[in-house]
Amino acid sequence: MQPYIYGLHAVHAALINPKRQCHKLWVTKETLKTLENIKKPANLQITIFERREFSNLVGENATHQGIVLQADPLPHVHLEDYLKTCPQQTLCIILDQVLDPHNVGAILRSATAFGASAVVQTDVNAPDINNSIIAKVACGTVERIPLISVTNLSRTLATLKQHQFWIMGLEENGQQWLHELEISGRMALVLGSEGKGLRRMTKEHCDYLIKLPTQDQFSTLNVSNAAAVACYEYQRQILQETKKRKP
Amino acid sequence: MQPYIYGLHAVHAALINPKRQCHKLWVTKETLKTLENIKKPANLQITIFERREFSNLVGENATHQGIVLQADPLPHVHLEDYLKTCPQQTLCIILDQVLDPHNVGAILRSATAFGASAVVQTDVNAPDINNSIIAKVACGTVERIPLISVTNLSRTLATLKQHQFWIMGLEENGQQWLHELEISGRMALVLGSEGKGLRRMTKEHCDYLIKLPTQDQFSTLNVSNAAAVACYEYQRQILQETKKRKP
Repeated sequence: MQPYIYGLHAVHAALINPKRQCHKLWVTKETLKTLENIKKPANLQITIFERREFSNLVGENATHQGIVLQADPLPHVHLEDYLKTCPQQTLCIILDQVLDPHNVGAILRSATAFGASAVVQTDVNAPDINNSIIAKVACGTVERIPLISVTNLSRTLATLKQHQFWIMGLEENGQQWLHELEISGRMALVLGSEGKGLRRMTKEHCDYLIKLPTQDQFSTLNVSNAAAVACYEYQRQILQETKKRKP
Repeated sequence: MQPYIYGLHAVHAALINPKRQCHKLWVTKETLKTLENIKKPANLQITIFERREFSNLVGENATHQGIVLQADPLPHVHLEDYLKTCPQQTLCIILDQVLDPHNVGAILRSATAFGASAVVQTDVNAPDINNSIIAKVACGTVERIPLISVTNLSRTLATLKQHQFWIMGLEENGQQWLHELEISGRMALVLGSEGKGLRRMTKEHCDYLIKLPTQDQFSTLNVSNAAAVACYEYQRQILQETKKRKP
């Protein structure tokens, strides 16, 4: 069964996504008012809940903000589908065993904000792609950017290379600074797990091992912050390149 | 009383910080082994705990990683002390009512990694500066970068200006892109609260209202990710400037 979707932004985005089949909504009277201007699916069953009733649905610790949705999972996007429609200039984020759904959700949000086209993770050693915390922290962006699940990361990186992607791995001991790398065309950025970083096999598939300009005394960023920085740098270079080309 | 400090990195950093008075440590046998090479304070009382015993100390939901420390709060750093020793080229992060301790902790971590010199927040409408979650998420950086608490943010911004700081406010509708602003000298970056952004009074004190190059369709980043990006951009420009000056 699909886990519940909760939180204001996550539920709003799901309700207006035509690809999302929504069934039941539990919501406080006050929060329902904020949905007045949203066109809701015709068959949506709405139940008014008191604040204290939500814990029966989603547990004590869920930050539900008085709104919970039951909906079908989104149609799965396969890597092959993505590659068929992928632009010539794009950024794809690859997660090498990032385990914390908060991090995956935050990465989806930053990736969307800075115009990346997909986030890829593995079937195992990764949170379920329909995890409620991912949807909550992603703030509605699970409805906008595909989260693609793959069986074998090495094979995926090889496939991306065949499709003209350059593979950049982010590593504390990378040889090159991100901002000194010329970013253009199709780029895939690989991020390692919290604590452990990139696996050896993953590193061997990278065209570049890059690092961020952090202090020697304290150099490790949280993986979602590192992703945000890399997505920003991608977007910054694209904008500066576009500006240069203007007459 | 000082809240407990928990989590591997947070406790490690506290134990080796000469400014931190540490009293009691509760730790699993396995985790204690990882501390073998760390010089521990002479009077530290160590109690070996089983995993299940920690919840009595720090509650069910704390991600304690089998290690909890009781220590005195760090000596408070006042804005005046910071300004006395503050370098001519520096970045200071100002939080305008950022409420979530996870965000404050993550901002301390990124600020430290990218070489900022302080993080400032208000006394009210902000988490306690000794909050356990801040220390955990900051991954030990509460021992490295001052988290300064001030009573009045408008007055603080005025004081910073008197000390040759340029004040940049990060705003979705800012007039200027961060990467097009020439960053040099003393810079203060002001970040607004989750959801609400900068307050009107805060905006009026800003020399620049800047924005990040996000997509129009989805433009809002999590505040800790926005902070990481801004700290990165500061460091990138400093490095490129230094490189240009080299013969």
